[in-house]
Amino acid sequence: MDLEESIVEKNDKATLPIDKNLQPEVPRYDQWEWYSPLTSPFLITGLPWLAQDGLYRRLPLRPSHPIRSEVDRLANFPTGVQVRFKTDSTKLAVRIILADKATMYQMPATVQCGVDCYIGPMGKQKYVNTTRFELTQTEYESVLFEAFSQEMREVTLNLPLYQGVKELWIGIAPEAAVTAFDGFASNKKVLLYGTSITHGACASRPGMAYPNQLSRAFPLEFVSLGFSGNAQGEPELAHLISQISDPALLVLDYEGNTPSTEHLAESLPTFIRIYRNVHPQVPILVISQIRFAREAFDEELRLRREARKELQRGIVECLRQEGDAHLHFCDGAELLGEDYQECTADGIHPSDLGYKHMADRLRPVLAKLLQY
Amino acid sequence: MDLEESIVEKNDKATLPIDKNLQPEVPRYDQWEWYSPLTSPFLITGLPWLAQDGLYRRLPLRPSHPIRSEVDRLANFPTGVQVRFKTDSTKLAVRIILADKATMYQMPATVQCGVDCYIGPMGKQKYVNTTRFELTQTEYESVLFEAFSQEMREVTLNLPLYQGVKELWIGIAPEAAVTAFDGFASNKKVLLYGTSITHGACASRPGMAYPNQLSRAFPLEFVSLGFSGNAQGEPELAHLISQISDPALLVLDYEGNTPSTEHLAESLPTFIRIYRNVHPQVPILVISQIRFAREAFDEELRLRREARKELQRGIVECLRQEGDAHLHFCDGAELLGEDYQECTADGIHPSDLGYKHMADRLRPVLAKLLQY
Repeated sequence: MDLEESIVEKNDKATLPIDKNLQPEVPRYDQWEWYSPLTSPFLITGLPWLAQDGLYRRLPLRPSHPIRSEVDRLANFPTGVQVRFKTDSTKLAVRIILADKATMYQMPATVQCGVDCYIGPMGKQKYVNTTRFELTQTEYESVLFEAFSQEMREVTLNLPLYQGVKELWIGIAPEAAVTAFDGFASNKKVLLYGTSITHGACASRPGMAYPNQLSRAFPLEFVSLGFSGNAQGEPELAHLISQISDPALLVLDYEGNTPSTEHLAESLPTFIRIYRNVHPQVPILVISQIRFAREAFDEELRLRREARKELQRGIVECLRQEGDAHLHFCDGAELLGEDYQECTADGIHPSDLGYKHMADRLRPVLAKLLQY
Repeated sequence: MDLEESIVEKNDKATLPIDKNLQPEVPRYDQWEWYSPLTSPFLITGLPWLAQDGLYRRLPLRPSHPIRSEVDRLANFPTGVQVRFKTDSTKLAVRIILADKATMYQMPATVQCGVDCYIGPMGKQKYVNTTRFELTQTEYESVLFEAFSQEMREVTLNLPLYQGVKELWIGIAPEAAVTAFDGFASNKKVLLYGTSITHGACASRPGMAYPNQLSRAFPLEFVSLGFSGNAQGEPELAHLISQISDPALLVLDYEGNTPSTEHLAESLPTFIRIYRNVHPQVPILVISQIRFAREAFDEELRLRREARKELQRGIVECLRQEGDAHLHFCDGAELLGEDYQECTADGIHPSDLGYKHMADRLRPVLAKLLQY
């Protein structure tokens, strides 16, 4: 018996793969029943405008306030988007058509274009597998598990973080039952607006983005509004995010993309004011930038980050003194922990190690604000 | 002032990058002095046959015992190989010519083809940066730091894990001094023979492979003999590894690539016997396979892994009873910790999170055997 062969299928290409365990699976022509998660009983979370537009898109197709072209394009990357359902299927597959192949060098295709699968009820979800495919594929089919025992399981699929999804199909054993996810504790949503770090850059797979990690700790829908490189705290985004119904909490984690400190000093109070006009009592948590690996050798860089942190802390403090008791500040410099230099892939963006530290330290902060 | 612009240069391509912070740097035509690390005062570790063959290759070019073609090719991937030196340069760059571009979907190009940089003396090395390049590049030039203060620093560069290196050049400010690394505590080497996991598959950057992580905790040279998918415990490899002079410890971590349990039952005692004939008293540490994410849902898989673990533990115990006091066993199932399911990128290969857990748990085991 070959242990690893039982996990990863042999590649039958003419060219010999150097490590067959690192080759994607060949498609298997078993019988599958293919479901669109856009239909009942599947639930898709993280897409506030899904009912209106019917697309895997995180902002409205026709926004009431104009958005920059970069934000428009990034809205099609379904970071933080999850498909939830229950099934007693002994096997599970995904078929996906993407807008493009993986294009970035500092994170794997598994996080850009992959789907990963967790099994278990809320609060007890455990990772099982990630889709396997070729680096250059724009569409693929991949088995997430098979030969499991036939029993009812709650499945969470985390969609690709850095590529548009044109079509998604869930493959189930034809004889299996598929039913709806048991539902959240309430219809309240946790909203996170931020940079590439909120977006999940340099995680190894979608489920390790920090909003996805946090979502596994709370019985609420999470909506990731990470816009890689483009979270400038624009008033237009504040207006659009204000339109998302039933917010439980709004996280603002966009310092890293602000064009300048002066811009941050203007945009943050404006963003909060716009949001407060619509949601006067929803908790808002402002998180400052995590630390850079280079800081230990670049005092100017550290001082600049510290200055922006104190700016944000001051804005929050000032607005609290003016009566906004639901505004809170979290020092992002603490999130990676003492060993912060080890936690990134490129000196800026956390690896899974860094995202795990962030989620571990943010969990109690959110628990307090969400009263869970 | 733009914080992130100061870290990552603007991309001046005609097409607008969607997140400029995720674009590689454009080459800068500053003045650099380019050094080959194959010359004095640079030290290259992890290549026992470098003096003989003059190549970035982990096995001899003309091995005394025949090796399979896959092992032959993998020997050219310089995992665990480090360049060490001291410099007071205010800036540092790398120019590299690779055998090919990044080809794998489940780990980033930064770990396949990248170089990462640590600064600091032995035991206190801190990560600074990783090279930046395009996904399709087979050669590139990248700045690791600049505008640092002019003071003497110890630099460790970790070479690409999954691509051959044809040429490597280190760029230094022309006026800067370059001197030799202070040296190890002894000329003894830690040798690690194993699978893709020893090789570092799915780390985010080279320095996060577990042999590289461990190397930062001990004042000794580490030699990674990870052969992704191809560590079958062949007697030929035992003979070749026996030829490496001054071993401090030999780690055997190849269960995952063994063709069958029966094969493991034969190959492990044979491998140890061959090595013992040359090195009767060098500590040998046998590590069993880490846990698979799927185990929690696949009892057969778990039982098979457990059986192989007990087989290896039994072989070690038996040989110890026959008088080999320098043979040791480590239960790999404990290395990822309780949250083992979260620690891999694809259910098999650890992410940085998993490799950090492995290194943290192996460090005290090695400390005891190495008496550090």
